[in-house]
Amino acid sequence: MSNSAAYGKTIYLDYAATSPTDPEVLEKMRPYFSPQYGNPSSLYQSGRRANRIIELCREDAAKIINASPGEIIFTGSGTESDNLAILGAARANRSAGNHVIVSAIEHKAVLESAKELEQEGFKVAYLPVDKSGRADPKELARAIRPETILVSVMYANNEIGTVEPIKEIAEAINKKRKSGGAFPIFHTDACQAAGYLPLDVKKLGADLMTLNGSKIYGPKGIGALYVKKRTKLAPIILGGEQESGLRAGTESVPLIVGFAEALRKAQESREEESKRISTLRDYFEKRLKEEIPNILINGDPKSRLPNNLHVSIPNIEGESMLLLLDNYGIEASTGSACSAKSLSPSHVLLAIGQSPELAHGSIRFTLGKYTSKDDLDYVILIFPEIVRRLESTSALTLKSQKQK
Amino acid sequence: MSNSAAYGKTIYLDYAATSPTDPEVLEKMRPYFSPQYGNPSSLYQSGRRANRIIELCREDAAKIINASPGEIIFTGSGTESDNLAILGAARANRSAGNHVIVSAIEHKAVLESAKELEQEGFKVAYLPVDKSGRADPKELARAIRPETILVSVMYANNEIGTVEPIKEIAEAINKKRKSGGAFPIFHTDACQAAGYLPLDVKKLGADLMTLNGSKIYGPKGIGALYVKKRTKLAPIILGGEQESGLRAGTESVPLIVGFAEALRKAQESREEESKRISTLRDYFEKRLKEEIPNILINGDPKSRLPNNLHVSIPNIEGESMLLLLDNYGIEASTGSACSAKSLSPSHVLLAIGQSPELAHGSIRFTLGKYTSKDDLDYVILIFPEIVRRLESTSALTLKSQKQK
Repeated sequence: MSNSAAYGKTIYLDYAATSPTDPEVLEKMRPYFSPQYGNPSSLYQSGRRANRIIELCREDAAKIINASPGEIIFTGSGTESDNLAILGAARANRSAGNHVIVSAIEHKAVLESAKELEQEGFKVAYLPVDKSGRADPKELARAIRPETILVSVMYANNEIGTVEPIKEIAEAINKKRKSGGAFPIFHTDACQAAGYLPLDVKKLGADLMTLNGSKIYGPKGIGALYVKKRTKLAPIILGGEQESGLRAGTESVPLIVGFAEALRKAQESREEESKRISTLRDYFEKRLKEEIPNILINGDPKSRLPNNLHVSIPNIEGESMLLLLDNYGIEASTGSACSAKSLSPSHVLLAIGQSPELAHGSIRFTLGKYTSKDDLDYVILIFPEIVRRLESTSALTLKSQKQK
Repeated sequence: MSNSAAYGKTIYLDYAATSPTDPEVLEKMRPYFSPQYGNPSSLYQSGRRANRIIELCREDAAKIINASPGEIIFTGSGTESDNLAILGAARANRSAGNHVIVSAIEHKAVLESAKELEQEGFKVAYLPVDKSGRADPKELARAIRPETILVSVMYANNEIGTVEPIKEIAEAINKKRKSGGAFPIFHTDACQAAGYLPLDVKKLGADLMTLNGSKIYGPKGIGALYVKKRTKLAPIILGGEQESGLRAGTESVPLIVGFAEALRKAQESREEESKRISTLRDYFEKRLKEEIPNILINGDPKSRLPNNLHVSIPNIEGESMLLLLDNYGIEASTGSACSAKSLSPSHVLLAIGQSPELAHGSIRFTLGKYTSKDDLDYVILIFPEIVRRLESTSALTLKSQKQK
């Protein structure tokens, strides 16, 4: 029996893991399951119509990020977009150099791609971050070598919410480019940023940018990669000539429609929603600090996603907090959902200098568009109580260990 | 203005390109867009529930093909499944050998993967087929070398509908295996077969089998790969540990639910629907032969998908036929949708020994669950007329060319 009945509903505070599909988005998708089911590669009317719909979505998405339609490649997920960016750019440009730089706090989709590149003979440098999770553009400039072909630094971190100085990083990279040169190519993963931060690729200075449907109230199973004109990529999924030859396989028209609509809505409501959510988050943070004096707030206090509150509490297991919260109908996470089942401490927390012990006592709350002050007030009631309970158990355990 | 008003509706005869999503399938998917949107990797209740749903779908899919749930990997498309099978099996088992055999009439997703393997230093043999498109198990046996690690022969061809002797091929492969040995691994692409043929992997003798949602009235953007226990694969999409580490990225619960339901329905109705459709197809074939005496029927007369009618007509352009049919609201194709925009003649037709000229005069009709005898009667009225019109233009062109 769950105790969530106490509040009457589940409090979802893990929007960084995934978001519900907006019912309006699903409504837009519906006709493309049926009756408008044509294969966009087919030459007859229903195929041409499907193709036209995809191209309209591509135009919409391009406009939102200030790109050209030909610069948008639809993929099957944010992970696939990251893979296409990292593996695709490195493999296609190997003749220009074999050195790649990625930040130490990238998503696994980037880090595992980097590891694969190491297997393929590339050299990978891991750019460190400071205590708040920020990469230093000057340090990046020093790390760039003549043979560096690719740099990947995420727009905003998925665990601690730190927003990276993307423009400054792009400028540092640009200065290192030989006049008119294309290298290093700059990739940024904007999956977590898309709901809250501006996505103008020209202002950001990105050559490749990853987007994802499932974090912005779109469907799961769709992502996109912005690929700046003349940036050479090798495809990772091979077959037909779909998506300019960069992603084979029948395009999923409903998912593409859902993605474009979700992106439009996310960017449209971005400023207003950022204000609303950061006000809520700041209130939540303030109240938790009052109730739990030894709580540590992770991430950059100024440069942080408005919906993220990532905390560590000494001598407590994050997993235990999660389970007890869950028992009260409160859903939060210890970090990335992609690593939720892993027992090793978060690479992000280690990179910002946390001890493995403290890292294990961390918990991420990420707010979203259905989060209300009432929801947070309920958590403020329950969470400190849980912490106190776990602290007393932990103190007993320590005491009994000492007695042994 | 289209002439389809003559019949009152569009006649879709390209079910091999894609099928509409069954409204009942979409209904099953719906709750997983929202409100049941949890990330299956998350540890709290809504995440665990999402994970449980995926595992139920995996059990369902496994049962249908007589496999264990752990042997089903969900992917983003049939193409991705083919890639994972070919690239994944070859790369993971390179130490066992560097030779791969694929049939000459495989889908591009397999052939392009094979080309990529050649780039990576593998040797690829292309197994020829006879005039009807059938691969010869004896010829395959002769082509297998001690260093052959992988054989890929599709279950049924997507263009001409020929059903390959999969069991005999599996037996030939099995005889070549050293006692208890795993190589060559046998992959079969069953995307086109899934609606009409039995999928029992044990009876078929496949180690890897590709399935796809969009050909069986499921959603686009989802596929599956059957991976027999102990078959080693390298993932092609890297990141989180989803799908036993073989396919990173947040699982799309609604698509997985849709796929499992579509597969269940397809296999449930398979025998009855095969009878109904082959009766219709045989009638259609007979009537077209009567109306167009010089028509050639491609594929194997006996061993052919019940919904496929692939024809060639001498001295006529397939594209012109398509455009005129489209003008009458009849949607068919020249071959694979994935190559619809390519101008080169179909590799499948060349492999069965057609001249490039005749190959260009080909057209594929594929029937589906919404095809009626009335639809076909309308096509029988229109299509021969179109052929005669094109033949007279073609004759005029030939005459004027001779006069020059």
